[in-house]
Amino acid sequence: MERLPGFRDFYPEPLPHSDVGSADARQFIFDKWRTTARRYGFREYDGPPLEPLDLFTTKSGEEIVGQLYNFTDKGKRAIALRPEMTPTLARMVAAHERNYKKPIKWFAIPQLFRYERQQKGRLREHFQFNADLIGETNPAADAELNALLIDTLRSFGLTESDFVIRLSSRNAWSDFFKQGRGDAAREYEFYQAIDKLERTSPEENEKKLTALGFSLDAVNTFIQSGKPTAELQSILDNLAARGLRDFVKVDYHVIRGLAYYTGTVFEAFDAKGEFRAIAGGGRYDNLVKLISGGKVNLPALGFGMGDVVLLELLKARGLLPKFDANVDVFILVEDENLRAHSLKLVQDLRTAGYAVEYSLTIAKSDKQFKRAQELKATYTAKFESDSYVRIRNLKSREEIVAGANDVANHLG
Amino acid sequence: MERLPGFRDFYPEPLPHSDVGSADARQFIFDKWRTTARRYGFREYDGPPLEPLDLFTTKSGEEIVGQLYNFTDKGKRAIALRPEMTPTLARMVAAHERNYKKPIKWFAIPQLFRYERQQKGRLREHFQFNADLIGETNPAADAELNALLIDTLRSFGLTESDFVIRLSSRNAWSDFFKQGRGDAAREYEFYQAIDKLERTSPEENEKKLTALGFSLDAVNTFIQSGKPTAELQSILDNLAARGLRDFVKVDYHVIRGLAYYTGTVFEAFDAKGEFRAIAGGGRYDNLVKLISGGKVNLPALGFGMGDVVLLELLKARGLLPKFDANVDVFILVEDENLRAHSLKLVQDLRTAGYAVEYSLTIAKSDKQFKRAQELKATYTAKFESDSYVRIRNLKSREEIVAGANDVANHLG
Repeated sequence: MERLPGFRDFYPEPLPHSDVGSADARQFIFDKWRTTARRYGFREYDGPPLEPLDLFTTKSGEEIVGQLYNFTDKGKRAIALRPEMTPTLARMVAAHERNYKKPIKWFAIPQLFRYERQQKGRLREHFQFNADLIGETNPAADAELNALLIDTLRSFGLTESDFVIRLSSRNAWSDFFKQGRGDAAREYEFYQAIDKLERTSPEENEKKLTALGFSLDAVNTFIQSGKPTAELQSILDNLAARGLRDFVKVDYHVIRGLAYYTGTVFEAFDAKGEFRAIAGGGRYDNLVKLISGGKVNLPALGFGMGDVVLLELLKARGLLPKFDANVDVFILVEDENLRAHSLKLVQDLRTAGYAVEYSLTIAKSDKQFKRAQELKATYTAKFESDSYVRIRNLKSREEIVAGANDVANHLG
Repeated sequence: MERLPGFRDFYPEPLPHSDVGSADARQFIFDKWRTTARRYGFREYDGPPLEPLDLFTTKSGEEIVGQLYNFTDKGKRAIALRPEMTPTLARMVAAHERNYKKPIKWFAIPQLFRYERQQKGRLREHFQFNADLIGETNPAADAELNALLIDTLRSFGLTESDFVIRLSSRNAWSDFFKQGRGDAAREYEFYQAIDKLERTSPEENEKKLTALGFSLDAVNTFIQSGKPTAELQSILDNLAARGLRDFVKVDYHVIRGLAYYTGTVFEAFDAKGEFRAIAGGGRYDNLVKLISGGKVNLPALGFGMGDVVLLELLKARGLLPKFDANVDVFILVEDENLRAHSLKLVQDLRTAGYAVEYSLTIAKSDKQFKRAQELKATYTAKFESDSYVRIRNLKSREEIVAGANDVANHLG
């Protein structure tokens, strides 16, 4: 029986095949995400993987339905597997924002789902680190969030020669659009044209922009100027004070595809340009109001960082550690008369916090030792009599004999 | 907009309402599960939350469909949200077992889904710690798994006066059934009657058992004898060697409802009998073969422990810690001329591993201090000039002035 196309199984390492996911690498990534978020004072939340379909169509329009895992449940409800976390976050904040002091700084690590037409190797699920800051309009909030994004990537050993944050602003584009006397009703259409600029031919870009009353030249000149707005300059200065200025450049190519962004927008890319975006985000000052039906009005911003591109990048840069069973002690049982003593030692060492393995059943002594080596155990321990234990460090090959109740004191 | 009935939102503590989940308590539980499993040499795995419907009907028959979140996807596939982890595990092991030395010791923490008729407060999802041991028939494996179950519960501070493992055996019941000359075709029907014995009236039990050729008296006598089989005695002796004998009692009331169990079965209950089962499991020696279509034949056993009953029990016994933001240092910015210096300190302390908070924008000094107290920060730190920082321990109220580059050396 096979798993569904576009989904991953996560196995312990070493992996049986290159086409399955690594549970160890996944947990390694989650741990870094969680640790860095907590250092920044972000608190964890989560919502259901299933939500009412309305939650997503309210935010993104009916056209999103074509990309969703959506269905009707047995209670005749139109529901969907979450394709992104922000609507759930907005729903949760709107429901209970009075309980939390502003700014709210929250993170989550949801699994997200999209049902797009199957392409070779294209996944229908991924995990995404989401960090959001709610209730603050000041660009200091944008700087704090960008600093978190930078430090999250740095926590994996990535440096300023590995990645760059391309910082931009819908406000800057909005000003550009207004100065060019664009038709307000077509502003989002204009943003979408900018979003696709780098992936579209010059002829097609010229055609689309002309239809909107703009020239490709004017657009390119604006992008190439790269002049930060006062808002962006404030973010850059804030990051400079932290020593993080070199990780960020203003790049007006970035505008983000989603309709709901309102202010600064940004994306993280690998410096060599080999991969898709590592992370992306921006301000969405109107979304909480929209989701709450006008009841709660809070400015907000956030970013998402998926596990798939990040993992590819870490592999390519040699930044994924080797994962093993992390066994501290393998207990050798060579005399079945000493098995009860050995089980007691297994228990005592586990209680003391060590990861302990042993052969469940009778096994030849060389087979047990080989297993200890395969598991990369740090030590073996073996009862020599009913009261003395021989401890061997498999790396240094040092040996010592200790009293049965004194073994833990001889482990590093 | 509301979340779906039967689902939980998980908020950071303190919680806005008693009817929402705690993301902090959830992570606390996950951490204990993960840590204990690793001490026992179990490795983490995971599968997709969506699986082909067949995977579950193959194992449990068509009647399970009534309890599933199942639907047809846009590719016309019959699929379901996983109601349990064991079929996914069997599928994954069958696909790649050659890559892993036996016994395979794996754990997972999946979210599971059931669509049963909505009852007040009844959840349609929960998280479950799953630990399985594959490839070993010896009762030493059953003992190892029960020891893990016991130590998992002990890791939360629960003691032998808080919970008990009721250990039983389908083999014992199978022998009883054969000695009583039961009709082999109705053996599972008999197991189901035993499973419901304690929740059914004596009259109804008598009627069901008589129809199967047994008397309620004979069944009760067998249960009350409580005599361990050789297999169960071996498990008890093994646990006794570890000093864990007092956590387990033989109780033939336990037989487990699911069809696929083959040998030992067990459930963990709170000692006062106030809650539903905390955990349950047993041997399923034929399942891997069934799921793999006969290709792979491996004995196996495992247990599942849900988050819901465990959380209720921990609350009732006062074993849930108070959760807060875990802020180490709150940096006070009272002079905007010193904000750049303060941001640098924020950055340096976070890089050093501390959780650091500060006011993003200009705020009155008493408001900042109040916020530091609300966050239960351990320290405040404030630039007194551009090179000296006053550090205050909010618990001991001790204060010290340190050089700006020397702050971390004065934090505990």
